[in-house]
Amino acid sequence: MMIGWDKAQQATALLDEFDLGAWMILVRETGEHSDPVLKLFGDPHAVWPAAFVFARSGERIAVTGLGDDQPVRQQGLFDPIHTYTQSIRESLVGVLEQLDPDVIGINYSRDDVTADGLTHGMYLNLLRYLEGTPYAGRLVSAELFVEALRGRKTAGERALVQRAIRETDAVFQEVGDWLRAGLSELEIAYFVRERVFRRGLALAWDAEGCPGLNAGPSSPWGHAGPAADVRVAAGDTLNMDLGVQVEGYCSDLQRVWYFLRPGELEPPAEVMRAFAAVAGAIQTASGLVRPGVPGWEVDAAARSYLTKAGYPEFPHALGHSVGRSAHDGGTGFYPRWDRYGGKPYGRLAAGGIYTLELGVRSPVGYIGLEEMIAITEDGCEWLSEPQRAPYLVAG
Amino acid sequence: MMIGWDKAQQATALLDEFDLGAWMILVRETGEHSDPVLKLFGDPHAVWPAAFVFARSGERIAVTGLGDDQPVRQQGLFDPIHTYTQSIRESLVGVLEQLDPDVIGINYSRDDVTADGLTHGMYLNLLRYLEGTPYAGRLVSAELFVEALRGRKTAGERALVQRAIRETDAVFQEVGDWLRAGLSELEIAYFVRERVFRRGLALAWDAEGCPGLNAGPSSPWGHAGPAADVRVAAGDTLNMDLGVQVEGYCSDLQRVWYFLRPGELEPPAEVMRAFAAVAGAIQTASGLVRPGVPGWEVDAAARSYLTKAGYPEFPHALGHSVGRSAHDGGTGFYPRWDRYGGKPYGRLAAGGIYTLELGVRSPVGYIGLEEMIAITEDGCEWLSEPQRAPYLVAG
Repeated sequence: MMIGWDKAQQATALLDEFDLGAWMILVRETGEHSDPVLKLFGDPHAVWPAAFVFARSGERIAVTGLGDDQPVRQQGLFDPIHTYTQSIRESLVGVLEQLDPDVIGINYSRDDVTADGLTHGMYLNLLRYLEGTPYAGRLVSAELFVEALRGRKTAGERALVQRAIRETDAVFQEVGDWLRAGLSELEIAYFVRERVFRRGLALAWDAEGCPGLNAGPSSPWGHAGPAADVRVAAGDTLNMDLGVQVEGYCSDLQRVWYFLRPGELEPPAEVMRAFAAVAGAIQTASGLVRPGVPGWEVDAAARSYLTKAGYPEFPHALGHSVGRSAHDGGTGFYPRWDRYGGKPYGRLAAGGIYTLELGVRSPVGYIGLEEMIAITEDGCEWLSEPQRAPYLVAG
Repeated sequence: MMIGWDKAQQATALLDEFDLGAWMILVRETGEHSDPVLKLFGDPHAVWPAAFVFARSGERIAVTGLGDDQPVRQQGLFDPIHTYTQSIRESLVGVLEQLDPDVIGINYSRDDVTADGLTHGMYLNLLRYLEGTPYAGRLVSAELFVEALRGRKTAGERALVQRAIRETDAVFQEVGDWLRAGLSELEIAYFVRERVFRRGLALAWDAEGCPGLNAGPSSPWGHAGPAADVRVAAGDTLNMDLGVQVEGYCSDLQRVWYFLRPGELEPPAEVMRAFAAVAGAIQTASGLVRPGVPGWEVDAAARSYLTKAGYPEFPHALGHSVGRSAHDGGTGFYPRWDRYGGKPYGRLAAGGIYTLELGVRSPVGYIGLEEMIAITEDGCEWLSEPQRAPYLVAG
């Protein structure tokens, strides 16, 4: 919960920066459907409609159903905590009247899932609660505020992400020592997960696709689960996308292995050339990262490097924020495609932690890398040690 | 996934009953924020915006980002699966033009969290996708449809809930054999969870409050976690609220123990009187349950029984649907209070599985019961064996 306190302090400062009088999180039945931002504050649970209000003046006030107040009280982040039995409306309006914020940020966003925790039904309810008050007319999307709050990591958050990266590296090492030709993607996935769990870690995303694996040329690219009938052979590459969680903070890295044929001492030239193009695109992109740059420019630099090297564009973004989730929302290195909405135009800020990831499909398998960086005051630094060449598995 | 197929068949039949041309589930980044209904269909994951469309004609069509299609394809419930790289809009509009539904249900609901999976940001996106088409004007809330789909259990779903109840009973038995005065709520909770996990089961809700415990008179009522400093003493009652999951289907039951004082052979009269009032209110309410009855009437009968017995009203609803979640949304035995919106007026239907739960705060502790019933064609039947008297712990 130290991080919860740090993030609450940060929220107050950011309300000032983003010129919001208050920020309101509105949820119900969080066991069924919660707001992603609540995880930043110790993930308080509520059965009945509950509001968590952060005021620019520094106050943090909760309104919960009677019986839902105890866990929030024990947590200590909100004080006072108002309770109700029949309807949240009266207490909620009372809190707003007391604070009288000029602008109230709420959690909806067309572009950013992590800033879009308010359901449409709850939005309609909120309008009804605020009927006859001036506050319905003061609601705005808090997306830029939430993006900054999630994106700008505190020292405590960054330390946990770094631990997650170190643990992932250790798993890559163990897996590399064990790999051999003939294994199926599913067998490799089982081994990887067992090693993650043995370290007392959780996976950073759904187990079905964690690790994500591409063994050889027949494996379909994308968010597919490891296949029992796809086996890695001598002469193939193996691509692995793995993330783990340390105390709720994630890593997200990709590494690539080449399985030597009998008598081979190094990968064939086309594998080395593809690897160099991928690693080079990531290095080039990293050189453009600094506060104030719009994310799409970094994506475009990698995209251009790769196509100039003679490879097709990658069908996804160059990188995304990492933190509480492997895909942590907010700004990232997104191309200016419709599916990314306004996100490509977001500007980078110091404290952000991002991936840089892309790949090339080769005749012997997918060759992809994913590294992690932190944005500093005047550039970025590597949080992962970039992979320099395909790891080799002896034939 | 057998249940996924059954629910998909059921969905087609219900589209007809609820006069919807199509039903659309719209999600993105399901690892961060999903729609609760997806769990009914094997919980397919998607990173990029994805639509799952059920047509009254029986077709089930998915639109996913390229790379998200593989897991949906492997699952087999949707065919065809359209993929896109830059924007979902064109494929989605194409699907609607092909089906041309007169009314399209989408997942928002003011009253029911389980039918409210669409975020407000995604709702705004949907309006934008459908701009310039006739379909934006055909969107309606699918809440009654979703409520029926979740609420009316298939034989397979009911069998899993029954297994969850049997497992919970077995845990109650083991815990009862072990209980003794002097234990703290936290110690009891640890033991209960260990017994649940040893059976290979998951908890039905967040571990912090599962089991929910009230030991003696000083324990706060509500959704609070078990306390390390609240210990059960001779002369106290212990109330336990426990649910487990079997293959994703839940139980939700409350039981009450009395800790005999030295020399006591049975609980004091006031404990027996309170227990009888609680059990009697539940029995009385169960007699009113049958298809077509609005839920609030059942709640009112229990409420009236309890107050006539000289106890205060319980500050919550008499009962809720149970299935994929312990609080499964939809119709229930809700009082006509604002916080329950329109839910109290929903009418019961055969196939529904519900709790009946209430309690009384006594000077020696909380005395509450929660039983489970299934609605039949002409009444209801007990899925749990109702507790007849406080379980006794020897002094």
